[in-house]
Amino acid sequence: MNLLIGCPAETEWHESRVAVTPEVVGRLRRIGLDVVVEAGAGRRAGFPDEAYVAAGARVGDRLEVFTQPDILAVIHRPDCQRLRAGQIVIGLLGPYEAPEELSEVTALSFEGLPRTLSRAQSMDVLTSQANVAGYKAAVLAADTFGGFFPMMMTAAGTVRPAKVLVLGGGVAGLQAIGTARRLGALVTGYDVRAAARADIASTGAAVLDLKVTAEGEGGYARTLTADEQAEQQKALVDAIRDFDVVITTAQVPGHRPPALVPAEALAALAPGSVVVDLASGPLGGNVAGSVPGSRTETENGVVVLGAGNLPAQVPRAASSAWARNVAALLEHLIHDGSVVLDPEDEVTAGLLVRTKEAVS
Amino acid sequence: MNLLIGCPAETEWHESRVAVTPEVVGRLRRIGLDVVVEAGAGRRAGFPDEAYVAAGARVGDRLEVFTQPDILAVIHRPDCQRLRAGQIVIGLLGPYEAPEELSEVTALSFEGLPRTLSRAQSMDVLTSQANVAGYKAAVLAADTFGGFFPMMMTAAGTVRPAKVLVLGGGVAGLQAIGTARRLGALVTGYDVRAAARADIASTGAAVLDLKVTAEGEGGYARTLTADEQAEQQKALVDAIRDFDVVITTAQVPGHRPPALVPAEALAALAPGSVVVDLASGPLGGNVAGSVPGSRTETENGVVVLGAGNLPAQVPRAASSAWARNVAALLEHLIHDGSVVLDPEDEVTAGLLVRTKEAVS
Repeated sequence: MNLLIGCPAETEWHESRVAVTPEVVGRLRRIGLDVVVEAGAGRRAGFPDEAYVAAGARVGDRLEVFTQPDILAVIHRPDCQRLRAGQIVIGLLGPYEAPEELSEVTALSFEGLPRTLSRAQSMDVLTSQANVAGYKAAVLAADTFGGFFPMMMTAAGTVRPAKVLVLGGGVAGLQAIGTARRLGALVTGYDVRAAARADIASTGAAVLDLKVTAEGEGGYARTLTADEQAEQQKALVDAIRDFDVVITTAQVPGHRPPALVPAEALAALAPGSVVVDLASGPLGGNVAGSVPGSRTETENGVVVLGAGNLPAQVPRAASSAWARNVAALLEHLIHDGSVVLDPEDEVTAGLLVRTKEAVS
Repeated sequence: MNLLIGCPAETEWHESRVAVTPEVVGRLRRIGLDVVVEAGAGRRAGFPDEAYVAAGARVGDRLEVFTQPDILAVIHRPDCQRLRAGQIVIGLLGPYEAPEELSEVTALSFEGLPRTLSRAQSMDVLTSQANVAGYKAAVLAADTFGGFFPMMMTAAGTVRPAKVLVLGGGVAGLQAIGTARRLGALVTGYDVRAAARADIASTGAAVLDLKVTAEGEGGYARTLTADEQAEQQKALVDAIRDFDVVITTAQVPGHRPPALVPAEALAALAPGSVVVDLASGPLGGNVAGSVPGSRTETENGVVVLGAGNLPAQVPRAASSAWARNVAALLEHLIHDGSVVLDPEDEVTAGLLVRTKEAVS
């Protein structure tokens, strides 16, 4: 008898992604899984129930999608009272908050993926969603800015391209740089890590040097000292006034996002400038006064967009990438129709929040 | 004594453009004009009062901006009771509606510009604003569509680019094509005019052939016969199902926009597809059921954006282009500090709604 994987509809506010798309149903079936999807789960991402059925999945109601499957694929941690003991749950489960809710299930949480491992990269939802967020941040900035991004040559003369500054050269930052450059903007990037500055330069963007270097562990930047942060902010206040658009993407996992753009820097921008704070969230953001999911305007007419959940605003692309990550993970874990959770395997060990015996 | 040109704040709903920007103040002064701008007139376009003053203009209140100047530069027809007899008024004045309102002034209306004349092109606000609208339509479509525009090559596989169809190969259509292509979409264009189809091909976009040809006068398409329109719609219903995004830009001046995308074509699109109707306005639009300035969704999950006033949504770029058009026109009309309205001049004759004597 085949294992059954279930995909419920996400219920978080503003969440429009879905963890399994019709595109990967065939891949899941090829490794011996049957697939059941909650009715309407993919609707907001552009995947109607019929598309799942056409791909070979079954559509069910919420109760059966939670109770029948051996494996559940989700975006966020679901209502854990609905879970069945022994189920495998795969998602961004936030394992450090209320871990006891997950004690009866086998929780595989993407936060624990060893991201620098080459064979883990096809499973990395943090990367795939950061890529979507970086793309969306640049498109959102273009849609909000009152000028053109590209240079325009018209009968009435030439218009210079927009000057865009991207702070942070990780996945999101590099994609924001790439997208703004596609649109024709003149882009400058910045990162405290020398390696990320090299990545920025390799895109063809200019690199800003604020004279602060801070490489940390696992490819992330370390938290700056108070002196370094003050020095960086001061240098940025001087540099920022030349830019029409600023996109900030600096996140340190599990910590408050670094304060990159203080109120003085916002005050130095010209009226009509746009700042997108991709790091804006419940713990704060990179930009003074940014509010997650909101558009605010400073006294001097600078528009600040607190990002909120950007991947959910590009739900088709984000879900499609997420579902591929889930399929790659399951291809790694399933052998001859059974889930094998080998604690010696780095990927499994990283993901596993609490180990149960392998189901079969 | 110098002539005085005034620029009031626009008061139409959703209008954020301004007819004179700080950038052109120097040009206007060089031909002997003094410039007065209403306080706050440029604020929503990103031009604060101080920028006008720094460029050499004066900032005044609404009363003086209407009563003192010899020349008024506006976007839309202003409240005509405020005008002073003998003033020159330059803008998109809609001269065929209530022309008697303009009887006491010298009205120069851009609708009458002989657009095919090469020396008129630097003055052509219809072209410059259509260019802005085409850019914005593509950016808006990218911001609304739930997938990526570009092809993405990631660790989890390759994502195909969005397929975009642009109907109408005029200024707006060509700019929408160019912008969607910049963003990496796979773009196809269509026009009933053979010459416009050649323009589309020259951008590198694919050209759709719906087997209907209808060249009209002045570079516009002629209105199709009922049979031709039915044939075109039928061919489009067949072709449209392959596209993720459709942008329509077909306008025939002074007429209802042609109905290009009937309800059957919308029904053939996949859920999550986006249709931007740039022609959507009080007379109707190119797309069945589009509402100007509104986002609607069909039963099968297709998002339809009725454009409304797109140039006003890119107010810095649109105002900057408009102001350059106004400056080019005034450079043409002003000789030795006086406005010369020569009825033998094609540009002047075209613009002039009702001739008064030249002011000096």
